[in-house]
Parts: sequence; C-alpha cells; structure tokens
Amino acid sequence: MYNRQARMARRAFLSGTAALGVGTAALGAGVACGASNDPVAARPTIATRGTYVLAGTAKATVPPPNRDGVTNAFDASLPPLLDSKRPFELVSKESVVEVNTQTMMNAWTFGEAIPAPTLHVRQGDTMRIKFINDSKMPHSVDFHAAFSPMSKDPMGLLSPGETKDLDLPIPYAGTFMYHCGAPPVFEHIGSGMYGAVIVDPKGGWPNKAAHEWVLVASELYLQPDTGGKFITSTSKLLDVTPDYVTFNGAAFQYLKAPLEAKAGELIRLHVVNAGPTLATAFHVIGTLFENVYVGGNPANQLKGLQTWGIPPGDGAAFELRIPDPGMYPFVTHAFAFTELGAIGAFNIS
Amino acid sequence: MYNRQARMARRAFLSGTAALGVGTAALGAGVACGASNDPVAARPTIATRGTYVLAGTAKATVPPPNRDGVTNAFDASLPPLLDSKRPFELVSKESVVEVNTQTMMNAWTFGEAIPAPTLHVRQGDTMRIKFINDSKMPHSVDFHAAFSPMSKDPMGLLSPGETKDLDLPIPYAGTFMYHCGAPPVFEHIGSGMYGAVIVDPKGGWPNKAAHEWVLVASELYLQPDTGGKFITSTSKLLDVTPDYVTFNGAAFQYLKAPLEAKAGELIRLHVVNAGPTLATAFHVIGTLFENVYVGGNPANQLKGLQTWGIPPGDGAAFELRIPDPGMYPFVTHAFAFTELGAIGAFNIS
Amino acid sequence: MYNRQARMARRAFLSGTAALGVGTAALGAGVACGASNDPVAARPTIATRGTYVLAGTAKATVPPPNRDGVTNAFDASLPPLLDSKRPFELVSKESVVEVNTQTMMNAWTFGEAIPAPTLHVRQGDTMRIKFINDSKMPHSVDFHAAFSPMSKDPMGLLSPGETKDLDLPIPYAGTFMYHCGAPPVFEHIGSGMYGAVIVDPKGGWPNKAAHEWVLVASELYLQPDTGGKFITSTSKLLDVTPDYVTFNGAAFQYLKAPLEAKAGELIRLHVVNAGPTLATAFHVIGTLFENVYVGGNPANQLKGLQTWGIPPGDGAAFELRIPDPGMYPFVTHAFAFTELGAIGAFNIS
Repeated sequence: MYNRQARMARRAFLSGTAALGVGTAALGAGVACGASNDPVAARPTIATRGTYVLAGTAKATVPPPNRDGVTNAFDASLPPLLDSKRPFELVSKESVVEVNTQTMMNAWTFGEAIPAPTLHVRQGDTMRIKFINDSKMPHSVDFHAAFSPMSKDPMGLLSPGETKDLDLPIPYAGTFMYHCGAPPVFEHIGSGMYGAVIVDPKGGWPNKAAHEWVLVASELYLQPDTGGKFITSTSKLLDVTPDYVTFNGAAFQYLKAPLEAKAGELIRLHVVNAGPTLATAFHVIGTLFENVYVGGNPANQLKGLQTWGIPPGDGAAFELRIPDPGMYPFVTHAFAFTELGAIGAFNIS
Repeated sequence: MYNRQARMARRAFLSGTAALGVGTAALGAGVACGASNDPVAARPTIATRGTYVLAGTAKATVPPPNRDGVTNAFDASLPPLLDSKRPFELVSKESVVEVNTQTMMNAWTFGEAIPAPTLHVRQGDTMRIKFINDSKMPHSVDFHAAFSPMSKDPMGLLSPGETKDLDLPIPYAGTFMYHCGAPPVFEHIGSGMYGAVIVDPKGGWPNKAAHEWVLVASELYLQPDTGGKFITSTSKLLDVTPDYVTFNGAAFQYLKAPLEAKAGELIRLHVVNAGPTLATAFHVIGTLFENVYVGGNPANQLKGLQTWGIPPGDGAAFELRIPDPGMYPFVTHAFAFTELGAIGAFNIS
Repeated sequence: MYNRQARMARRAFLSGTAALGVGTAALGAGVACGASNDPVAARPTIATRGTYVLAGTAKATVPPPNRDGVTNAFDASLPPLLDSKRPFELVSKESVVEVNTQTMMNAWTFGEAIPAPTLHVRQGDTMRIKFINDSKMPHSVDFHAAFSPMSKDPMGLLSPGETKDLDLPIPYAGTFMYHCGAPPVFEHIGSGMYGAVIVDPKGGWPNKAAHEWVLVASELYLQPDTGGKFITSTSKLLDVTPDYVTFNGAAFQYLKAPLEAKAGELIRLHVVNAGPTLATAFHVIGTLFENVYVGGNPANQLKGLQTWGIPPGDGAAFELRIPDPGMYPFVTHAFAFTELGAIGAFNIS
C-alpha cells in the first residue's frame, strides 16, 4: 500500500515525535529512537540515530496525524436507554467535523458528529426512530441490529426533506454497527455516516459495570476541498491508504482527553469497527480482558484475552478491571495503522 | 495498495453506477452520489455532485467489475451426499470460464468451472475420489477436510494423463476448502483450482434447513492473454491488487440471479474463503445470523452475529431466517473490496 | 500494496523456483508452472509456460526469500518453566541476526536472537524478571500476559546500562506476546524486539503433549545499511510491504530443519503473531487441528478446525495428532505472504 502522499504525511508526523508517548512523566522523558525513512539510503548507526529525516513533507496535502487530538472529544459514555415512549430523532445532514487538530472535514453525518449518536436499547425492545433527512442528497440507514430488507424501510432511500418513522424489533443483544446504506455505500460510510447500536441482554448484564464506553473504530481517507477543509477521497478509500485511523471519528482524541476510571472498577467497552475496510486488532496496553463477548453477545464469551480482532462491519464487547493506577492506552495492535491515530487511553486513578 | 491500473478499472466501473443498487424499485430510484476521485482536485460541492469523473480509464486492461454478473450463475445449492458406492471423478483441466460479463478467463479448474465441484460428505465417511489429470501440467489436490502428507496421495503431483484413486477418512464436520497444492500454490489457487468440501455432522444438523447454499469467496487477479481472454496475474496476486472479488468465481453473479427463499425459512450457508490472500467479513445486509459455526463445526457455535471474519483458507457455516420478503444482499463488509464483485443477494418471497 | 522493490525481490525469488516444494521426493519431481509477471504483456500459452521471467531484479536491494533457511534454526521447543527461585535475566541489546541465507540483520533484540527468549510460566505464578538494558538506547518491555501501566515498571523506559527487577503476577493461561514498548513502538517491534510468554493453565493441560513448540510469526521490513547488513525499514513497515514473513524470525528456517515428531503423538503449538501489522491465517497442510484455544486459554476451545486467524498482537494454541508419516508444512494461508518465508514443516516419522 501507500506509495504516496499519505505516507509522506505520515512520516512528517513521525518527525521528532515520540510515538506512543502518552504524556506521562516516564514517557515524557521520551527518546528519539528514529532513523531515516529513505528505503535505499543507509541509515545512521544505531548509536547516532537521532530523529526521523523525512523527505517530501512539503507535498503533503492532508495534515499528518497529530497527538493533540481535537478541541472537544466525542463523549464515549454509553448513553441511557432510548425512551420507549417517543422515537429518537436521527437526522442525516452535512456537518463540519474536527477529525484532528488542523483538520476540519466536510462530513456527511447522522447528527452533527462522527460517529453517529450511540443508540442504546434492550434485547426484545422495539427501537423507535424518526429518521429525518435534513441533507442535500438521499440517504438511508442500515441497522445491523435489526432485520430489514434493503428495498424497504429503513433502507429505502429517503429524499432530502423527507421523514420516516421506524419501529424495529431488536432480537439479539450485541454491539452493532449502523450506517447509511445509500449507494455507493463506501462513500457514505467513508464520509462519516456510521455509529453504534448497543443492545443490552434481556435480563441485563450479569456484572454491573462502573463504566460503559462505546468506541467506534474507523479509517478516514481525505482530500482537500476548495475551502480549506477536507472531504472523503473515495480514491484513497478504494486503494486502502488511510490518512487517519480513529476511535470515535478523531485521531488521538482520547490521548488528550483520556477516559477516567478507578483501579479495580469493572469497565465494559463496546467496540464497533465501522471500517470501511481494515480490521481492528483491539488491545489495551498494560491490561488483559477478563471477558470478550464476540459480537457483543453474552452468549459468546471468551476468557482472558490480550487482543481480539474485529472485522469491518462487526463489533465486540470487552470487560476489564485494571488493578493499578496509571495510563493504559487502547490501540489497534496493527502497528502500521496505530500511529495514524488509533490510540486513546484510560487514566486509572 | 493499488496505485495502478486495477484502480482505474475500478473507478471506471463506478462511473455513473449506483453502487450496491440491487435493482429493486427503491434502489432503482438510485442516486448518483459521486465525486471526483482525483485526490488533489477540489470536489464539487455536495449539492452539485453528479457522477464520478474518472481519469485514465482508457488504459484499463481488465474490464471493470460489472453488475450484470455472468450468463449462467454457478449453482450454489449444496449437492446431495457423494455416492459411497463409487468414487467421484475429480478432473483437473484447462477451462474457459466467464468470471464477469465481457471477461472470459483461461482458468485452471477442477471440473469446468470456478469454483470446483462442491463435495458433500458426512463426518466419519470415507470420501472416495478418482482424481484424473486431464490438463497439460501436473496438479495435486489438498483437501483441508482430511489428513494427508504433502509427499503422498493425494498431494503428490499427478502428471498429465494420470489417474489416482483416493479413499480419505473425514474426521470432522465442517466447511472446508480444497485446492490444488502444486507449486507454486498461489498460482494454482489464483488460476481457479479451489472449491468446498461440506461435511455434515455425524448425526446430521439439529435443525433441518429449507435451503443449504455453498459460497466460495475468492479474489481474481487478471491480465490479458494474447487471445482476448484473461489469465491470472501472479504479479497482481503477490501485490494484493485484485481485479474482482467473487462469490463462486464470478463477480456479482447472484445479483442478477439471486438465491430464492421464503420468509421464515431456515437457510444454512456454507462459506469457504479460498483467498488466496484477503479475509472475508461475511455479512448479509438487513439480517442477523441466528447461529454462526466457526469452521462449520456445530461444536463451535456463536449466537446472534451481524458479521463473521473468515481468514483465507478457512470456512464457516451460518444459519439465518429472514422474517420479511425483500432483497437481502450478502457481501464482504470490507468496502474497498465489496464493489469489486463480492455482492450477491437473497430474494425472499 | 507493493508497487516496488520489495516486489521485484519477491519475483526474483520465484524465478525458476518451485514454490511450496518441501524437498520430498514427490515434490522434488517439482514442476516449473510459471508465467511472465508483467501484467500487460501476454503470457505464453498454458502448454508452453516454463519459468517466471522477471524484470528489474537487478535493482533488488534485499535478497529475495530463500528456501535454504538459516545456518542454525531457532529452537522452537517450549523451554522448562522459569525458575521461581531466581529471576530470569532479560537483556536488551543490539545483535546481528541471520534472518535468511545471505541476509544478516542489525537487529534490536532481547537476548541475541529474533524472537526473544520464550518465557514459560504457570497461571497464578509471579513471573520474576531482571530486565537489563545492555543496548545503546532506551528500551522497555510490554508483557501482554501481565497487568502493568505504561507509565511504570516494566513499561517505563530503561536507559542504557540500567537494570530493573520485575515481579509480575500472571492471571490467565495463554499464548502471549511480549515486546519492547519504547517509542516509536513499531520500530522497536520491527527491529526484532518481540517474543512469547507461554502460560500453562493452573492445573496443567488436560492432555499431555509429546511435543510443545512455540512459533512467533512476524514480518520483516528491511533496507541495506552501510556495512553490507540490513536494518529495519520503517518506511516499508508503514507501507505494509514486507520483505520476509517468518516463523521465529527467519524465513523458511523450518523447511531446512523441520520439527520432528512421530505419527499419532499429541503436538501442542503455541503461536504468537507479533505482526507488526499482518494477520496470520495459521494452517498446517495435510492436517486438521483437534483443538484450537483462542488466546491460548483452555477456556476458549474450538474443535476440528483447518485454519485459525490470529490478529497482530495476539496468540493461540493448537493441538493436533498427525496419523501418518510424511512432511506437513505449516503456513499462513494468506498466499501473497506465504512465499515470503512463512512456511515451515513437521517431519512425521
């Protein structure tokens, strides 16, 4: 992959930057263990390696991933259950979204952010949605948590200005993706139209968690528009050369704004991989998962894992208790992609 | 990946084409939500986006993936159990195979199609095969369902014109790949020599399915030959730049010829991922899997999944019941590859 | 991927080489089933295909993967349990490592090899390590088997010449990765700093294995240094264009030096995928896995599988009994990568 600008941008980012440094004292002591990235030039000897020397960074058209995150991190908390009395208003629109410091994206969204609002329901519920198309083009919505033919509600296309009421029975507990299904799907997903439906098991989870967080992994493929912002590059998307890889739509946002918990508390993570293409090798540095639930379904329990691979279009739930205070980054352990932004952190006190 | 012709071909395909449109009324109302794919050019504003503007399509040497599928779709039905009285004749040969409209491939095959004939046996059976090499080069056969040393039958090479009788005990139920194992393996797989062995559990499946279908996922990497047809490009294969991604050897064939079932019927899918390299994130749009059996073995049951990732060289079984009539596409949810042909559909009446 | 030198090197390797030939009589009869790799040139007809004709091989800067393996294969045997009386000395240093015939790598290592020493402990033990930094730069160690904040021992950076005593409780049985966690992590992993911690279940495994072997899968991304050896190319690493894909740090080493067992013996394999980026589709040609343990934890048992996908940063345990003598290669079944070195073999007598 990647014989191109995205790579130059990536390398620029690495210049003089301590990768995976999470701003703790120990890591702040940070070290420049770098090397020339020119594959044909000789690298300096190990003893004299200093910083990355990067060529071509002036040509970068997308700002390299930046550990400063974004101005306001997306709230990763699992929201309360949807009100069964009145439908949730899901509004498709165009939005300007900060996907990393310096990088504003002209996105297509449900709500006004990437990812879309997390929808929290219970197995056996009917999920009630009022789908409103407040955008300039047709959209649809494909809920992985529900049965629905592509030719009908909700996946039938909704024209600009139209509204549709959806009552969707939810048969299984799990960590589900939802996304726009309008053609071409890859462009609608690529432009930001994806989020999570979290379905509690009918009787609730056996263990009460102190924290439940939702992380939607995705890649962003960008190109400049004429107004100083960025839009999806379907070309890069089809070439699988991402500029950023994110949790909840922005590179590195939870390094700047870590998720806070106390030692020993039960944390339940609901992780959706929205893709559009890459798998996520989900791992929390310095910890182990007590339980991993394949698809987020408590019937599919795995014990004591270090990493779990989530294919695109899937999800999983993770339970962990971190015994000691400190900083614990969560990542995709596919390291060519980790440094594009797929690092956040838990700050355990 | 893909800084090359395959991409141009791909983009050409997208030009003016409503992607993921499955020809239903709702989707036929189809919309051209496109954009320039030049990563450095400004894209038109959202309101005026019309069709994809694609450069370089004249240089494409392989026809872009085409939603018209093929003339005759491969029969995805699970065939009856093999006759235990007489061996199944498995014939390696050279065949011309339609892999998409306009694209005829000079393939290497078992039988006369891609994929190879589905072999259906029962756990504990001895699978009886008469392997006949009716081709111009040596071949072998590697059954993932059976034990066999590489230096012996059936994996020892069979010269052109030779015949070999194989009696293979089948120890486990599952959804297994078989393929030519002659060196270089990647070229023999890439050229079409792969299929499925479906092994029923000893006592049969607990639930009787109304339909059992077999889908073999694979990538095709092509280059023109001198006669207007196409042959495997081992170069593209090693570069992981596929031209088509298919179910049962042809791009989009089950869009044109959907698999037909009735609402509420139990469908059991046996999905093999023949690769040669990509994983398949198997998903059926608008539905959920009641059960997923890892490796196709009923001992490895997962409940209520949206997607299951199948690595190359593996398989899985899926059970689903679709409650409502309509069109339900099945895909790999890795969207950079989906649109290369890895979309079929169930038509539920 | 791969529109570049790595590919040329790869193609050079294929020139006139019978791929997947494991040196048995049957395969030694080997066949040159090749074709031109120029994607636009016409290939010869099937009947006349001879050997691969490769362009540009003179430009290759990294020797193509070579089936001759290395001078001394890494000992894949699971070592005895660590001595609980005194700490294991884990020494980070610079080492010259043979990663394939003709290819000497200036690596960063724990111990003097790639992979790092396998650490064998039992669930519930405290793993006692004396971590000694005998290298010229700061390093750390991230044990996936243990809890530890990134800001503290053992993941806090150790300066050259420093020493640190670590007592780490091991809560779960499993097949775990460990690696240097110093920034940038991808370069430290890419340069060779990874290995396996194998944790026996508290009460031991239910079945006594005749052989327990440890295989650490990884990719190597290389560039020449000024002294005729090779160092990590972080550029290739970030572009995911590997030169070699290995088991235990060297391409093809267990073809030349197969792992020896007897027919019918229980073999337990502990496979870690160190990445840095690619998944491993672990498969043994000619056999089936009796049991696969996800994460290497006996609580997560799958039955009768042909292949299991291990994401980067994860591991798994596999049990198999091979009924008949012969040669049984183990591979990643992702064939674009297999031929870069990810083939070893069991020799069953």
